[in-house]
Amino acid sequence: MNQRIAIIDLGSNSARLIIVEIYANGSYNLIYHQKDAVRLGQEADKNRRLQPEAMSRTMSLLKSFAHMCQIFKTDKILGVGTAALRNAVNGSEFVKKIQKETGISISIISGEEEAKLGYLGAINTLDVTDAILFDLGGGSTELTLIKNRKAKEVISLPFGAVTLTERFKLENKATEAQLAELDDFLSQELAKVPWLETLTLPLIGIGGTARSIGKMEQKRNHYPLLKLHNYRTSSLSFHSLWEDVIKMSCAQRRKIAGLSSERADIIISGLAIVKHLFETIDSTQLIISSCGVREGLFLQYYLSQTGQTELLDPLSHSTDNMLSFYSGNTEHAGQVAKLANGLFDDWQEILGLQPRNRTLLQVAALLHDIGITVSYYDHARHSAYLIENARLFGLSHREQIMAAIIAGWHHSPSVKYSYNRIYNEFLDAANWQTARKLALLLALAEGLDTTQMSLVEKVTTNISKKQAQLIVTTKQELLLELQAVKKHSKWFKRETGLELAVSTASL
Amino acid sequence: MNQRIAIIDLGSNSARLIIVEIYANGSYNLIYHQKDAVRLGQEADKNRRLQPEAMSRTMSLLKSFAHMCQIFKTDKILGVGTAALRNAVNGSEFVKKIQKETGISISIISGEEEAKLGYLGAINTLDVTDAILFDLGGGSTELTLIKNRKAKEVISLPFGAVTLTERFKLENKATEAQLAELDDFLSQELAKVPWLETLTLPLIGIGGTARSIGKMEQKRNHYPLLKLHNYRTSSLSFHSLWEDVIKMSCAQRRKIAGLSSERADIIISGLAIVKHLFETIDSTQLIISSCGVREGLFLQYYLSQTGQTELLDPLSHSTDNMLSFYSGNTEHAGQVAKLANGLFDDWQEILGLQPRNRTLLQVAALLHDIGITVSYYDHARHSAYLIENARLFGLSHREQIMAAIIAGWHHSPSVKYSYNRIYNEFLDAANWQTARKLALLLALAEGLDTTQMSLVEKVTTNISKKQAQLIVTTKQELLLELQAVKKHSKWFKRETGLELAVSTASL
Repeated sequence: MNQRIAIIDLGSNSARLIIVEIYANGSYNLIYHQKDAVRLGQEADKNRRLQPEAMSRTMSLLKSFAHMCQIFKTDKILGVGTAALRNAVNGSEFVKKIQKETGISISIISGEEEAKLGYLGAINTLDVTDAILFDLGGGSTELTLIKNRKAKEVISLPFGAVTLTERFKLENKATEAQLAELDDFLSQELAKVPWLETLTLPLIGIGGTARSIGKMEQKRNHYPLLKLHNYRTSSLSFHSLWEDVIKMSCAQRRKIAGLSSERADIIISGLAIVKHLFETIDSTQLIISSCGVREGLFLQYYLSQTGQTELLDPLSHSTDNMLSFYSGNTEHAGQVAKLANGLFDDWQEILGLQPRNRTLLQVAALLHDIGITVSYYDHARHSAYLIENARLFGLSHREQIMAAIIAGWHHSPSVKYSYNRIYNEFLDAANWQTARKLALLLALAEGLDTTQMSLVEKVTTNISKKQAQLIVTTKQELLLELQAVKKHSKWFKRETGLELAVSTASL
Repeated sequence: MNQRIAIIDLGSNSARLIIVEIYANGSYNLIYHQKDAVRLGQEADKNRRLQPEAMSRTMSLLKSFAHMCQIFKTDKILGVGTAALRNAVNGSEFVKKIQKETGISISIISGEEEAKLGYLGAINTLDVTDAILFDLGGGSTELTLIKNRKAKEVISLPFGAVTLTERFKLENKATEAQLAELDDFLSQELAKVPWLETLTLPLIGIGGTARSIGKMEQKRNHYPLLKLHNYRTSSLSFHSLWEDVIKMSCAQRRKIAGLSSERADIIISGLAIVKHLFETIDSTQLIISSCGVREGLFLQYYLSQTGQTELLDPLSHSTDNMLSFYSGNTEHAGQVAKLANGLFDDWQEILGLQPRNRTLLQVAALLHDIGITVSYYDHARHSAYLIENARLFGLSHREQIMAAIIAGWHHSPSVKYSYNRIYNEFLDAANWQTARKLALLLALAEGLDTTQMSLVEKVTTNISKKQAQLIVTTKQELLLELQAVKKHSKWFKRETGLELAVSTASL
């Protein structure tokens, strides 16, 4: 039966609760999220003790988390606490108090464990093989060197956005002297990490500072999508942000679009760490991951329950999850994907398609019917909406939009998607053309399984000067399938210049 | 557990299968639809016998329906047959053959039973109290006089679009003489119905001809929504369509946007019947219902299972169905709706709102969180999409869009919806303003249940010159609720010119 898992992440800056529901068929979805910047780590560096006010703010938030877990009838609560708790001498005492007053048990995890969870959250939701991953929190910064998707080196640095802000008094407008001092400190600290060198790898950023960078950059660049995960920005763009922010007073920073006002005081030190990382490894790109420790914790639990390895293929895992979540007819989806891929392999060249396009076709084919949930009528359009907006991992934002359009066209290409202002900001004429061609392959494959009975065993193709032949091998009569395919003849001619001929061969 | 119900409707022109899934929590959704114009009634009028070719086409489609029922593992098949079967002397013989060869049992229903089912389908999905309902099929036309939502008079006329086309040979371009003959016939036949007179009631049309009228009119008027049910057209607009269509050959009619080519031959006689109905009752409006016999059959079954009466409130039934379908937190939804309605009642006047606006607010409040299904982040926007596109009954298209926008703004009003080309075609400046005000009430109500714990017992309001006061009665402390409400102060000031003050009163 359904299972509801609460994940609580108690950091030095903010505390968060997410609730994920796991359904009977194994699919899962986030159903609740709550957070507040309670600053548990505030002034804890002074005497290595959590301060009474910070603990009281945190306790009252955790009580409300406990209430929410009751309301949502969660089956399990996985709680972790990071730097503020592990560094304070009264950390474990506070954890006991939390247990007593709220029933929530928080495990204080080491920097390495924290890095591991962040790594799991990011690597399983991004299509990246090599990178430097940073998890920049309030009281610590974890760095992971990822090579071939594996964590090769890990370190947890004992400072973060909150602690550095306090140490260098950066709450208000930073003076040149303060910035120079901070600069020296960070240069020295990063120089101590032996494997941090000119790696020219992309940076992956998780944690509140990284998300804020993404949001600020999106606002500055008028980014048209409300999608943060896998947003990519350049070192150039980041440096221009940095130059602007350091000139501002805290009051001015509070007004920066994309930055929450409660983070305005600690943003300078957060940005400074990222700036040093950019420089130290000479990176040109920062990839924002909105999945980190919490998602890692969930996946670790989920995968252990289902006996899967900890390293997933993000795209196929998230595609399968969506298909199951929307209770799709997986047999039909699989058959259509198989047939579509076969057509792609045969005709990739004559259609001028790139290998990566096959991936988009595969996703669109598997998910082409999920819009039935919204309404059966016009379900292709709803599938497009769901694919565009769902938590599908391992595609770029443009690719996700293309997969949405391809699925939306699985009956026929429609101009109505080109009215979508956002789509036109991501797709140029060549992208639209590619989408039309891939949608044609999907429509043919869908037609070949129009009865959803997987009657087609095999399709072979043959191209002569003016004609493209589909020879369909089947055990049974294929009346509706052939009718459905023939309906696409005109479209086929438009994309390829060829006549489409369909014939059957019995097994 | 889940139940899947197949509905098969075997008419004189087309045969249709729908499959509806009823979920464990009682909500339901259409998951499959298939149809084909097999023309079972073709030439059956001649010797009152179904013709061999027509039966063979029908049998082969029914076999594919039976296959689909197997694939979808349906628990029950409800099959009905109408005019073609009831008028042919070999009708029941064919029904036996269908049972033997496909396992599907078809009940031949009387014209009155057919009218009853169509009435149930329409009255439970439209916000109409008085009307003349017609169900124009291939071989018969059912008329129902609806007064105060009840069926007061019913008649089944033994002719439809297929039979009249054959009788008056209207397949190709109609001559003036043919049209005059048809005209005489219809005048005589309708004059025989004693209760059909100058009723100046709206017409409700169900069946293929009515849907085609709606689709053709939508294309002619560049209607921006893909939504047929409850589309309304005028007698003026209908007559201009009629004048254009009768001048065309069948080949020209095949190209009419919105008309399926397989209906081009029988459209003239179909339109002629509607034209006569318009004239006989002197109606000015035609409401297209895409729900008819099939939906009536489903609802009859569903309501009998749940012990409900046959006459539903379309809007509250479909809203509740959506809320359950998307597994919403019904307690939170109900609490927010209650609070929002209370604020509406107190402030309707100062906000200049109309009574009907309360209905929109209620729907938006109940469904404001359903978008969590798509993705928790940005779920308000997804709720708006789902509300706009879902099978919500009892609202006009404009009202449905407004409910979508209100729900989409339940955290804050966003300009991004105004970028939606379609929204702007439906909403003028005053509508947008109304939506903003209703969204404000929803946001306040949502804020008052931000913890989803239904802590607020009662809200009383008080308006002085410059201030609006909310006095919240509660048994418990309301920290997060009050914070959430205060966040909307600026918005409140913008809409009302008043300062918002919130205080609590203990029970």
